[in-house]
Amino acid sequence: MSIHAERIEALRGLMKEAGVAAVIIPQADPHLGEYLAPHWQARRWFSGFSGSAGDLVVTLSEALLWTDSRYFLQAADQLNGTGVVLMKDGLAETPSIAGYLCSALKAGDKVGVDGMLFSAPALQDLSDMLAKKGIAIDCHFDVIDRLWSDRPALPDGKIFVHDEKYAGRSAREKMADVLAHAAAEGAQAVFMSALDEIAWTLNIRCDDVRHTPVATSYLYLSEETKVLFISAAKLTDQTVAYLAAQGVATRPYGDVASFLSALPDATRVLIDPAHTSGAVVDILGSRSVNVAVSPAAVMKSVKNETQLDGVRHAMVRDGAALVKAFMELEKRMATGERTTEIDVDTLLRKHRSAQDLFFDESFDTIAGYGPHGAIVHYSATPESSSDLAPEGLLLVDSGAQYLDGTTDITRTIALGTPTADEKRDFTLVMKGHIALASTVFPAGTRGAQLDAIARQFLWKNGLSYLHGTGHGVGHFLSVHEGPHSIRLNNVEAPLLPGSITSNEPGVYREGVHGIRCENLVLCHRVMETEFGTFLGFETLTLFPFDRTLFDLSIMTPEEIAWVDRYHATVRERLTPALDTEEERRWLEERTQPL
Amino acid sequence: MSIHAERIEALRGLMKEAGVAAVIIPQADPHLGEYLAPHWQARRWFSGFSGSAGDLVVTLSEALLWTDSRYFLQAADQLNGTGVVLMKDGLAETPSIAGYLCSALKAGDKVGVDGMLFSAPALQDLSDMLAKKGIAIDCHFDVIDRLWSDRPALPDGKIFVHDEKYAGRSAREKMADVLAHAAAEGAQAVFMSALDEIAWTLNIRCDDVRHTPVATSYLYLSEETKVLFISAAKLTDQTVAYLAAQGVATRPYGDVASFLSALPDATRVLIDPAHTSGAVVDILGSRSVNVAVSPAAVMKSVKNETQLDGVRHAMVRDGAALVKAFMELEKRMATGERTTEIDVDTLLRKHRSAQDLFFDESFDTIAGYGPHGAIVHYSATPESSSDLAPEGLLLVDSGAQYLDGTTDITRTIALGTPTADEKRDFTLVMKGHIALASTVFPAGTRGAQLDAIARQFLWKNGLSYLHGTGHGVGHFLSVHEGPHSIRLNNVEAPLLPGSITSNEPGVYREGVHGIRCENLVLCHRVMETEFGTFLGFETLTLFPFDRTLFDLSIMTPEEIAWVDRYHATVRERLTPALDTEEERRWLEERTQPL
Repeated sequence: MSIHAERIEALRGLMKEAGVAAVIIPQADPHLGEYLAPHWQARRWFSGFSGSAGDLVVTLSEALLWTDSRYFLQAADQLNGTGVVLMKDGLAETPSIAGYLCSALKAGDKVGVDGMLFSAPALQDLSDMLAKKGIAIDCHFDVIDRLWSDRPALPDGKIFVHDEKYAGRSAREKMADVLAHAAAEGAQAVFMSALDEIAWTLNIRCDDVRHTPVATSYLYLSEETKVLFISAAKLTDQTVAYLAAQGVATRPYGDVASFLSALPDATRVLIDPAHTSGAVVDILGSRSVNVAVSPAAVMKSVKNETQLDGVRHAMVRDGAALVKAFMELEKRMATGERTTEIDVDTLLRKHRSAQDLFFDESFDTIAGYGPHGAIVHYSATPESSSDLAPEGLLLVDSGAQYLDGTTDITRTIALGTPTADEKRDFTLVMKGHIALASTVFPAGTRGAQLDAIARQFLWKNGLSYLHGTGHGVGHFLSVHEGPHSIRLNNVEAPLLPGSITSNEPGVYREGVHGIRCENLVLCHRVMETEFGTFLGFETLTLFPFDRTLFDLSIMTPEEIAWVDRYHATVRERLTPALDTEEERRWLEERTQPL
Repeated sequence: MSIHAERIEALRGLMKEAGVAAVIIPQADPHLGEYLAPHWQARRWFSGFSGSAGDLVVTLSEALLWTDSRYFLQAADQLNGTGVVLMKDGLAETPSIAGYLCSALKAGDKVGVDGMLFSAPALQDLSDMLAKKGIAIDCHFDVIDRLWSDRPALPDGKIFVHDEKYAGRSAREKMADVLAHAAAEGAQAVFMSALDEIAWTLNIRCDDVRHTPVATSYLYLSEETKVLFISAAKLTDQTVAYLAAQGVATRPYGDVASFLSALPDATRVLIDPAHTSGAVVDILGSRSVNVAVSPAAVMKSVKNETQLDGVRHAMVRDGAALVKAFMELEKRMATGERTTEIDVDTLLRKHRSAQDLFFDESFDTIAGYGPHGAIVHYSATPESSSDLAPEGLLLVDSGAQYLDGTTDITRTIALGTPTADEKRDFTLVMKGHIALASTVFPAGTRGAQLDAIARQFLWKNGLSYLHGTGHGVGHFLSVHEGPHSIRLNNVEAPLLPGSITSNEPGVYREGVHGIRCENLVLCHRVMETEFGTFLGFETLTLFPFDRTLFDLSIMTPEEIAWVDRYHATVRERLTPALDTEEERRWLEERTQPL
């Protein structure tokens, strides 16, 4: 029996003890963010599957893992021998977890979950579905600690202050704004679970989550009482003093439930249910005031002038690092030295980490050569890493966390002389990129309304891509943040002036190549007319696109002019940040008019 | 005291008798469609306001009418002297009806409504809002008959069969399809309130609602029992025999509540709550199975080959009628004879009604000259009707109901030599019209994703329009039908191959002119690739755009080619349907390449 099968058997022992017929172990923590600290990776510990998305269900006779198409191959491989059945999410024949439980269990059965690991609406939906079949939910089935003897502790890295010279506004001001918004909703208090909202509100950062500088904590705010729930190990005299100066007390992380339970019945506490666990919502009961989007999330998405100034500077350093990295890559390949996808990653890290204010990468670099470029979430491993050859396309998606801003850029480059097909695919992607970068739209427009602007040229040629066109980007925070986005499915949050979003159409031909062209863009005011306020985008990212990949025959003069203008800006902004004449010449050549 | 004030006072008498503190009288009937038979125009009878949208609220001390910006001027005028206060819906300072009632009434008060006149979700929302303030709802407050002594009877026009040679499928087949969809949702029966869904399902038509050929009725369907609830006055031996042959029995319209009440508890009845009154949902109780969109509405939106063949023929006759009408208009103006907006309406009706298979207009013609063109829902009255002069723009939006299809077309024409500004506005609208007409998109795409394709050129120039870009169009049925649309706000129903939608961007400069360019388009399959099925639009409407209004300097060669191709198609299809050489010459001139 494999180690994972043994762990699942041990879990079944506790299930029988508690009279539970099934357990759901989701890929989630109580803060419901995109990435998890190791402490919360129980799904991986039980199943062996290491992907970033997927939930495990264990009944007394079966164990099943639901994950999406990105991970079908990896999951099949990692689940091999564990006895865990792969459930391919998104296929018509795959039932939902609730659907499966309704058919596998019988009326009167009980499903055990840890209510801290599900958002309130998700838990409600699950509970409603199961109730139709007479199946109950026990939301306090939290047995991980009893089974996972070497479970990693909660992160204990020290928090640090994100200086106001980068953040632009004090924690005190932000808390007052958040409370003013809450008051408008009839709430005297706000409770935050989302780690990036807490980090933004208090101007604190940490390294609890890989590539996302947040601290594991909860935040309660009212006029009288402001409490950060955080492990004492994460605090120093200095940070406690900083928080105290902002009017914020600290209490142990584990105190949050008893604190919320003890709030007076009349207290109205604003929460964003989608980012608050069902367990917390249960405790708050009728004291909670639900909003569709947390006010802190909206305010965080709108960057102030200090932050924007920082991002613009960070973009110059990031672009300079990319010039050095891509130049070194080219030179290395020119010498014939063996060069792999992992080497691309290493080169980028080397040159970025040498830049001022560098803190971390903002995610694991995706360097996909040839067919690997078509695997949207590819991450090279020593086993998979391809050798680069002087032909075909290399897709590189990477970014960094600087104290003054977060970057995220994708470039697709030809390693040899590109084929007509490669140029055509690339140019169709770029036409969409340019159309979105140049679009103008009325205030109040949602990203889903603009998504087709970036896809229209691909669609006309029978091509498409299934990922979003744009995600919000934090300021020295999550590289993916809400509430807005530019994607196929509808999200009600409009694009606000001051928000930063990625512009990243792509096309992926399985087994052939992948192309993605990504810059970050700032939403800004373009004009006021009798028809209202119109917004548009300013491109922030500074690095040339591969000039050899443009098929001018399918571009309009306006599109060509856009590329030439962009390249002129890149040259003008990056040249002063370069160190050698060779670098400047390299950039000069790559930013010539098309 | 005005007659309306007297009626409201009489209402207050009945309110006191029933212990009701406020009454809402909506612009609605129990079928929740867009247009109402005179029997249901109680809001107009009480308030004097005749607009197509607006709800009246009467408390013991106040009377208020909520309506939207289209009707602010008209409502202010018509409410003058009635004591009814105009509440301008959509302005930030205007509370919602529920919000007003929460502040005007006190806990323990009761609001009276007729639950037949509110959709189930609308009634639920209202009830939830009022409950927060301890205000109850009485859903059986239906006192109109007691006050409105000369209330028009329910419509008693005879129904007729819409021949299968036009409808393409028998009622029997459609009912089987609807029941199969219901079975997939776990329902053995379907209950329909929406008049156009009933007309479509049974292939029956009538003239109960102005310009929309439907019959006031309800329909209940199960394998064993199929009942049309309809007034006996509307039936003939022939139509009863037709219905019987399709397996459909008839019962009096008023029997519906007792019939539904008597259904066995185990019956599961599929309904679309948005198109079912709260009263009916109450009666059905736990027997109802709710779906987001009625299966009949989806099936109705997808036209079969017979229907499409009919529509294509109807478009030829409609186009020919427009040639004759616009030619006569031009000749008349050339002679200097006084010509008004109402004359345009009259000319269109004259030539359309002379066409084969003409049944009715599909809505009241909008003929707006100069500044009137900027009033989106303008309808000329003898008082408002402008004289046309040989300058400026005339916007004409009109359509017809033919037995083989419904048309809806808008053209904007220059009555003199157009100015540069007029040409520029017109061309920006046309660029969006052309972009939408030529767009290609993956199966599953929603209209809201394509809306910006039609708006992008206006937006870039600081212009916009607030109405939708496209609405679904019925087949010899409602000129506005769902479930799909192309508009700013999100509607989950995707654009399906076989569905017909309008393509009608516009721009409205208050006090100057209005421009709208509308064709109907058919969604169809364009290609299958490794990326899936791609759809596009085929333009169905056949009538030239005004060639003098194009500003070629801001058009691409592809856009010019689109107009030339469209005009060539119009000439080719319409020429054989014209009667005189003069008409053919007129069309020939107006369809020359740009």
